[in-house]
Amino acid sequence: MDPRTAAAWIERIEHLWHGQLPLAAAMDARITRLDGRILVATAPLAANINHMGTAFGGSLQTLGTLAGWAATLITAGDDMRCHIIVRNAHARFHRPVTSDLVAECALPDEAATADFQRRLARRGRALLRVEVQLPADDGLGVEFRGEFAAVSAPGS
Amino acid sequence: MDPRTAAAWIERIEHLWHGQLPLAAAMDARITRLDGRILVATAPLAANINHMGTAFGGSLQTLGTLAGWAATLITAGDDMRCHIIVRNAHARFHRPVTSDLVAECALPDEAATADFQRRLARRGRALLRVEVQLPADDGLGVEFRGEFAAVSAPGS
Repeated sequence: MDPRTAAAWIERIEHLWHGQLPLAAAMDARITRLDGRILVATAPLAANINHMGTAFGGSLQTLGTLAGWAATLITAGDDMRCHIIVRNAHARFHRPVTSDLVAECALPDEAATADFQRRLARRGRALLRVEVQLPADDGLGVEFRGEFAAVSAPGS
Repeated sequence: MDPRTAAAWIERIEHLWHGQLPLAAAMDARITRLDGRILVATAPLAANINHMGTAFGGSLQTLGTLAGWAATLITAGDDMRCHIIVRNAHARFHRPVTSDLVAECALPDEAATADFQRRLARRGRALLRVEVQLPADDGLGVEFRGEFAAVSAPGS
């Protein structure tokens, strides 16, 4: 993915998060890295803290969901108008996150992306399994696994 | 649980949510029912909407987490000072939620509660598995399952 395409994706997704998803706006979720291999979403600790001074579990799940949602949208392709719907979300909490929240989502490689886009074009829907890691200071904080469906929008 | 005890729990938990959990405050999460059998948490659609006009998946997971967290705290008992930590959270999304978000969490019966409190007193920690249902207008919207650890706080 060239840097210009990546910047356009980030602008489009953050615009949606901050304009149409009040919870993502309240979390101040951002995309801080996007290339052909990885998408990284972040959110400041202050807006996502709990009463113990660590990152709130709901915020960690939500950031994983936002990262997986964005990764699925990008995998569906730039010119494809479709909806992305979360079907399953599983978070395993290993250790507390004590600084800003970071969600690292590996993107499918070129072959898997092409296969996903082919299924979406043929059947009008395709399912993507994503794995998101949310690091803590001293190791893995949270493992998040999600299944997201891309569904062709009517008229697209 | 008598109504006075229930009201005191609700006040204590909502005070914490709205004072120390910015995300729960942004969601405007509340407890609308609590008796010996069930805890119901709710949040208005407007603060938790997505760009498709339905409840955002991150809000649904977070409300399930808040309900399960509260149910575990209450199961640990009124006089027990302990921390409640989410260990696992799994949400399965069946159909979109198109009105205010509702999370119904069954509470353990008296025998299971006594057993949980005994384990917590003996070992300093105990694990509770909770099931939370989030209804849609036309059936089950989201099934949420969580595992929460109660851990005795130092000095308690």
